[in-house]
Amino acid sequence: MDHGQNSSEDEAAVRAVVETWLAAIRRRDIEGILQNHSPDIVMFDVPPPFQSRGLEAYRTTWDLFYSSTSDPVLFKPTEMSITASANVAFVVATMRCGGSEASGLDFRLTMGLRKIDDRWTIIHEHHSVPAVD
Amino acid sequence: MDHGQNSSEDEAAVRAVVETWLAAIRRRDIEGILQNHSPDIVMFDVPPPFQSRGLEAYRTTWDLFYSSTSDPVLFKPTEMSITASANVAFVVATMRCGGSEASGLDFRLTMGLRKIDDRWTIIHEHHSVPAVD
Repeated sequence: MDHGQNSSEDEAAVRAVVETWLAAIRRRDIEGILQNHSPDIVMFDVPPPFQSRGLEAYRTTWDLFYSSTSDPVLFKPTEMSITASANVAFVVATMRCGGSEASGLDFRLTMGLRKIDDRWTIIHEHHSVPAVD
Repeated sequence: MDHGQNSSEDEAAVRAVVETWLAAIRRRDIEGILQNHSPDIVMFDVPPPFQSRGLEAYRTTWDLFYSSTSDPVLFKPTEMSITASANVAFVVATMRCGGSEASGLDFRLTMGLRKIDDRWTIIHEHHSVPAVD
């Protein structure tokens, strides 16, 4: 019976890509943020627009984030699970971001990755908060 | 060079699971909606709560949806892409739902699936709209 366990090697490789991305976000390093992303990234972000397609549009979402975030940048998982095979993976997390623990925003994050030319590549991110009435 | 193409067989199998789910939603068939879901489904929905864990909590999100949706139920992708390997897949879509085209809501959808005991199983859904200021 296949109970759908990850290989620990695949999971560790995906976790390393996510940790690299998180560390770059916290030091406001835009090139570091983009280093494992696909040119065709599809981003669903917390604020509008409805979607951002491609690296330049994705980069713009970080300009917006940093314009309203003070140092030190808070951006961390409160829970994270990784589902990985040899070539496709996704990450499900609850997150906290903002300028401080006290003023932080809780949000939901899903990431989709594919291994392309032997390298894990982020091809999708979905960040959101529940809608208010 | 591995350009990260799906096998058409994996992609078709995942697409069939998504189409089955969409058809069940449109006919208000709760058992049909749940038939390919994991007991450990993690749902991030458009309205609160922040997250729903497990099939019973997931079922409750549909009670809420139907309580505010008139017939015929509109729930369809406007764009959909599937990234699939033999055992893990995710789906990225823009969607329209509601009681009519005119009053419909545009939202973003990401789904995560894993093949467990040779059966594609939905283990995560993330539905959202952009936050308003």
